[in-house]
Amino acid sequence: MHLQNVLPADIEKRSMEIIGEELGQIRIDPEKIDIVKRVIHTSADFDYARNMLFSDGVVEKALDALQKGATIVTDTNMACTGINKMGLGKLGAKAVCFMADPDVAARAKEAGSTRAAACMEKACTIEGPVIIAVGNAPTALVRLDELVKEGKIKPELVIGVPVGFVNVVESKEIIMKTGIPYIVARGRKGGSNVAAAICNALIYKLTRK
Amino acid sequence: MHLQNVLPADIEKRSMEIIGEELGQIRIDPEKIDIVKRVIHTSADFDYARNMLFSDGVVEKALDALQKGATIVTDTNMACTGINKMGLGKLGAKAVCFMADPDVAARAKEAGSTRAAACMEKACTIEGPVIIAVGNAPTALVRLDELVKEGKIKPELVIGVPVGFVNVVESKEIIMKTGIPYIVARGRKGGSNVAAAICNALIYKLTRK
Repeated sequence: MHLQNVLPADIEKRSMEIIGEELGQIRIDPEKIDIVKRVIHTSADFDYARNMLFSDGVVEKALDALQKGATIVTDTNMACTGINKMGLGKLGAKAVCFMADPDVAARAKEAGSTRAAACMEKACTIEGPVIIAVGNAPTALVRLDELVKEGKIKPELVIGVPVGFVNVVESKEIIMKTGIPYIVARGRKGGSNVAAAICNALIYKLTRK
Repeated sequence: MHLQNVLPADIEKRSMEIIGEELGQIRIDPEKIDIVKRVIHTSADFDYARNMLFSDGVVEKALDALQKGATIVTDTNMACTGINKMGLGKLGAKAVCFMADPDVAARAKEAGSTRAAACMEKACTIEGPVIIAVGNAPTALVRLDELVKEGKIKPELVIGVPVGFVNVVESKEIIMKTGIPYIVARGRKGGSNVAAAICNALIYKLTRK
């Protein structure tokens, strides 16, 4: 079996070149291409070249929020772990996940809801700009939609990429009508890795210039 | 937008039913089906129904290793975070990731290699049964193959699901010839989420009976 001789430091660059070549004729706006490519890089799944939807001007708004030191709230510890901490540090931004917090578990139990939904309620208490990144639980997006409509939270950006088979497709359609700037992977696909990849693509736009 | 009324506790069960229905005529051995379904559950990608390869008797061997309190070594902190700690605890098993260890970074720099490869060297020092779970770096599998051949490590199982475009396909073919029991996703696809999902499927076979 023949291995390509690529230096460790060059593997990511070469990967992105291959992805760019294979995207071929698919046209993606220049400010979005880095984001789509990083999601394909993390999944090897070219479906993301077609299913990712961006609200008007969302990339500029997201970068502005990160530069203002936004708090990224994820719905899994996995996604939170996957976000580049060095990049966040350079921006004075941070990533948090409330899923393992005892008060979140208690609130979910009381409401007969999910911990992910309770996390969205806890996110309402954060001061400063907030980015919501959902890679797992559609119930988080459904609850977020309600909280926005109730005036309890106004995120700068929602990354809506839960994965799965029950209410996932629907939750993404709902959140795209809420009026928050969004980056969404339409359909069933997504995941904690995809959520982290989108966050990192945004962070790298500011920190790897 | 109409949401299905599924209780939080029933979402996973309903998801697995849908995956089972959509697998349709694809035949998968009974001891492997839970693993394949959990990978599809984490990715919404039915390619995994066809690309997952299992060495002979690997599931039984993997369960035996977990029951003996195996240490799972992952190549990303994300995968390590995604493995169910309550299940590991019940089995007396554990999951570790050396990627952020200073000695690993130093060793990789010295060798002109990757930190993931250096992690495999560090894994040789673990006492007791070891399971290697690679969801990101093909260089980890390539180095693991060398270390096994040098007699420095003998894992009970390798989960070989790195994702990507440079030497990923090749590294999986190499590791399937090393002689270690394996679960591999052939081709470019995989990821930290897939690695964690395979670990969790194995853990749940023992702890959710």
